[in-house]
Amino acid sequence: MADAPYALYYWPGIPGRGEFVRLVLEQAGAAYDDVARRPKEDGGGIPAMMRCLAGEGPGLRPLAPPVLVHGERRLAQMPNVCAYLAARHGLVPSDEGTRAEALQLQLTVADLVAETHDTHHPVGKGLYYEEQKEQALAYARQFVDQRMPKFLRYLESVVRANAAGGGRHLVGDGLSYVDLAMDQVLRGLEYAFGRAYAHYAPELPGLVALREHVDALPAIAAYRASERCLPFDEHGIFRRYPELDLLPASE
Amino acid sequence: MADAPYALYYWPGIPGRGEFVRLVLEQAGAAYDDVARRPKEDGGGIPAMMRCLAGEGPGLRPLAPPVLVHGERRLAQMPNVCAYLAARHGLVPSDEGTRAEALQLQLTVADLVAETHDTHHPVGKGLYYEEQKEQALAYARQFVDQRMPKFLRYLESVVRANAAGGGRHLVGDGLSYVDLAMDQVLRGLEYAFGRAYAHYAPELPGLVALREHVDALPAIAAYRASERCLPFDEHGIFRRYPELDLLPASE
Repeated sequence: MADAPYALYYWPGIPGRGEFVRLVLEQAGAAYDDVARRPKEDGGGIPAMMRCLAGEGPGLRPLAPPVLVHGERRLAQMPNVCAYLAARHGLVPSDEGTRAEALQLQLTVADLVAETHDTHHPVGKGLYYEEQKEQALAYARQFVDQRMPKFLRYLESVVRANAAGGGRHLVGDGLSYVDLAMDQVLRGLEYAFGRAYAHYAPELPGLVALREHVDALPAIAAYRASERCLPFDEHGIFRRYPELDLLPASE
Repeated sequence: MADAPYALYYWPGIPGRGEFVRLVLEQAGAAYDDVARRPKEDGGGIPAMMRCLAGEGPGLRPLAPPVLVHGERRLAQMPNVCAYLAARHGLVPSDEGTRAEALQLQLTVADLVAETHDTHHPVGKGLYYEEQKEQALAYARQFVDQRMPKFLRYLESVVRANAAGGGRHLVGDGLSYVDLAMDQVLRGLEYAFGRAYAHYAPELPGLVALREHVDALPAIAAYRASERCLPFDEHGIFRRYPELDLLPASE
């Protein structure tokens, strides 16, 4: 789809932060060129992404992927790209105040993503996990005992407050990009921290129901059954390392 | 100013992430109630902030400060609050694409703030610095050698690209909330990592000029000379620990 209105640039081997953008594009039914997923011989691969980061393209040079090119704009930062697409495709309410609430929640989900990443890279983003395993274990312990439940209980309270107003989403009256991101994080946490996920899930009925709802959306289900969707593995954000998959300490 | 249109809730003892919001409010000339800075007996202090986080107030319950209450909205996440205020007070261009560029840069500045924070808290956000000094030294080494220059060189390239278009800001034709945030980060880095700041500053003339410009804005200068502005110290994000103030390794 080299003539699609959107071009996405992201690491071709992992779902990572690119997946949050893909879910918005897929739910919107928008055509997009997932550039680095195309073969190198076809102008794709990591070299294409690196050219985009080095300066090639319209608009502002980005620091890091995911990057979305749309006409004369080259946008980065996952929550920003998702919010931009959502506004164009009816995946966020149009009033300024509700959009600010949605962005607030998306940034909170992004913070949870960043802390999940840091469970295997607490000390050095330029080092391998194998070089920081001891620190990773300490980080994972406080993540599983304190940070993961803090974030998830907060987000559960948000979906419950929405439910009290008659909704079943995180913000507003209908599906938004924030719900798509929440779904992806819950799947990632279950993959990487399966014991903690199972431990906390019973107190998170609102989030679990939201996840079931998003997983069953026809466009999302079709995407995940396709070859376009990459599985989680131990090169991305959500990694299943048995030694870090800790059972939470009793509170 | 208990009848001000805006109420800000943030830790009363440190500039922290609240300072980015304050700079927007001060440059906008907006009246605001810095609630937790008022005495407890006057309804302020940390208890007032905790009540706001626990649920008391309009709109969405926030997870963490800074929080801005404006009418029926209670907004959190620093870049989100700054963007919301900037849109209301002419501190960001009005077109959707430029606003997305501004948010992208603000999120990049916020990432730099988060990594700066992690130099003294790499392993546990619930632990003291003294409990993770060894890991902090390892984190600070890669921060000073790799991450700090990566961010600053990128942001320098952005201000230079703007200058090539005739501007002297990070985005658009005039001052935006992103410039205010950049100024605060440069001041914080100079405070916490003075040796690295001095090392890299000569290759960052665009950022240094931007900082001088923002520092000299009458509203900003007056604010910083006032008692409303808190100094950096070793309880906030930017901490001066001599053992972490490393000279960058030669490249």
